[in-house]
Amino acid sequence: MSINYKQYYLHQRPVGDTTDSDVRVRTVEVDGLADGQLLIKNEYFSLDPAIRGWMSDEPSYMPPIDLGDVIRSSTVGTIVESKHPDFAAGEVVYGLNGWEEYSVSDGYFLTKVPEDNQFPLHYYLSAFGAVGLTAYFGITDAAKLKPGDTLLMSAAAGAVGSLGGQLAKNMGCRVVGLAGSDEKCQWLTDDLGFDAVINYKTEQGNLNAAIAAACPEGVDVYFDNVGGEILDAALLNINSNARIVFCGSISSYNASEPVPGPYNWWQILAKSATVQGFLISNYFPQFEAGAAAIAELLTDDKLQFKYEIVDGFDNTLTAFHKLFDGSNKGKLMLKV
Amino acid sequence: MSINYKQYYLHQRPVGDTTDSDVRVRTVEVDGLADGQLLIKNEYFSLDPAIRGWMSDEPSYMPPIDLGDVIRSSTVGTIVESKHPDFAAGEVVYGLNGWEEYSVSDGYFLTKVPEDNQFPLHYYLSAFGAVGLTAYFGITDAAKLKPGDTLLMSAAAGAVGSLGGQLAKNMGCRVVGLAGSDEKCQWLTDDLGFDAVINYKTEQGNLNAAIAAACPEGVDVYFDNVGGEILDAALLNINSNARIVFCGSISSYNASEPVPGPYNWWQILAKSATVQGFLISNYFPQFEAGAAAIAELLTDDKLQFKYEIVDGFDNTLTAFHKLFDGSNKGKLMLKV
Repeated sequence: MSINYKQYYLHQRPVGDTTDSDVRVRTVEVDGLADGQLLIKNEYFSLDPAIRGWMSDEPSYMPPIDLGDVIRSSTVGTIVESKHPDFAAGEVVYGLNGWEEYSVSDGYFLTKVPEDNQFPLHYYLSAFGAVGLTAYFGITDAAKLKPGDTLLMSAAAGAVGSLGGQLAKNMGCRVVGLAGSDEKCQWLTDDLGFDAVINYKTEQGNLNAAIAAACPEGVDVYFDNVGGEILDAALLNINSNARIVFCGSISSYNASEPVPGPYNWWQILAKSATVQGFLISNYFPQFEAGAAAIAELLTDDKLQFKYEIVDGFDNTLTAFHKLFDGSNKGKLMLKV
Repeated sequence: MSINYKQYYLHQRPVGDTTDSDVRVRTVEVDGLADGQLLIKNEYFSLDPAIRGWMSDEPSYMPPIDLGDVIRSSTVGTIVESKHPDFAAGEVVYGLNGWEEYSVSDGYFLTKVPEDNQFPLHYYLSAFGAVGLTAYFGITDAAKLKPGDTLLMSAAAGAVGSLGGQLAKNMGCRVVGLAGSDEKCQWLTDDLGFDAVINYKTEQGNLNAAIAAACPEGVDVYFDNVGGEILDAALLNINSNARIVFCGSISSYNASEPVPGPYNWWQILAKSATVQGFLISNYFPQFEAGAAAIAELLTDDKLQFKYEIVDGFDNTLTAFHKLFDGSNKGKLMLKV
């Protein structure tokens, strides 16, 4: 089989926001597969803040995307041809591929969607994908939460934050969320049952006091997705032996100059707190169990989940920007 | 009993180095003790970087020293009069008192030196005091070291660093130290058995590469006493699941402006590392066991220990500065 398909590739490393001069579209041709390869027609791909990090030439948990390479992303799709012994045409699979209409894969880190799956396919990029598993293992393991603890969640209306906050509520914790609009804050309290919320935009310059007011018994766990000023304000409110789950730092991903760590770094010592750098890949052996637990919670209506699907391959970059201006509503994905 | 004695008190909060305009001497009079009080004639007091932190009006693990109050410090001395039921004149005690010739105490956090003590009295401010216990519990507990791990120690020729490095060697680790002179570096390798050393002054601007060269298998544990550029360089060399024991940050104690956290903060996530803020006070119930373990190691010649004692109450501030210009040789104390 010979096909042509479009893909986004990294032409130059972005400085600040990602532009269409940095990430460009080209048409590539696949003319037959090698032994061990398979071809996936992608149905959805994932738009994540982490992808912006991979575009930079900085040391991180994965190598940077090389110049000229396709933009790395999770996708879910259907196998159209296979020369791989473990995969057959017609099977639906998800894994780390790229922003492209088709992906050639050697099967590495590729997982099959169960045949009896009852959920929309894009759940395998969201609730059962990195986002859902991050919330699940971040809250149930890394955070070392006890019933009655106060959890402060940044980017609480985001995919990880909203799931994580609900999981902590299920565990009997007081859950306080930070989000960037009154609409998001209202969703967190009214629909998801958060105990308190802070609009970090209207409270800018007053975050320390706002957190103190929302967390009268201090912060036992701060789940950090954003870094920057919110992290600094959170550190001023942590209790002794607090845990900080360091899951992301979206405030710095578009920075064009080196961003310092928290100014209140000393608080980590002063409160004998623990900062745990969180990588979902460390939980790989438990992914299946985690996804099953999330599916059960969804089925039992103990977990609500919001996502936004942008339609059309050509809208990828426009959609990607929504992650950084805060305008996305839940886990963002693209329908090819 | 009525006596007059001299004490150092905080007149104004230092900006940068501590001067004799900030910390002044006065004579105070004690005319009789209240019930429950005792009077200690201090023999030695401790000079520690942490004391500089307590002079600042910043949130920390202890309240700041109030303006007008005696400079807080560990001391060891002899009880000259007691109206406390648990203490008698003639007993030798150590605890948190102040830079003063005598201390009035209510017995809180005061511990007796065992009657059969065979060690110099000032060991109760050093090897068996906060310094020795910090090295002991920092290395044997907080660092989660395994035989074969590489430990990178900053301020390695300091009191905590030199003891901690030796303890890690005893545990079968590769130990690499950072110190500020060739003389100190030579002491670490030749006398204490460190596997490698880095002179951070001559290697300034090249710390990342110097650490990489000295730690060919990466850094499993970074024991941080200094913060700043050394912390940033260390973070570039940590292995996956590394542990950072955050024990101190002497590079920032004299800063007159807010000091940012590490620029390589992201590495904590990228390597799923753990930062553990370390406070020796959390180990209070185990102090006696820790001191006994250290005493045994000293007796068995498995631990060497360097200290410097400056003689004369009036030399306290001059001696204190040695902590920050790196000219002290081992744990610094003052003989009253």
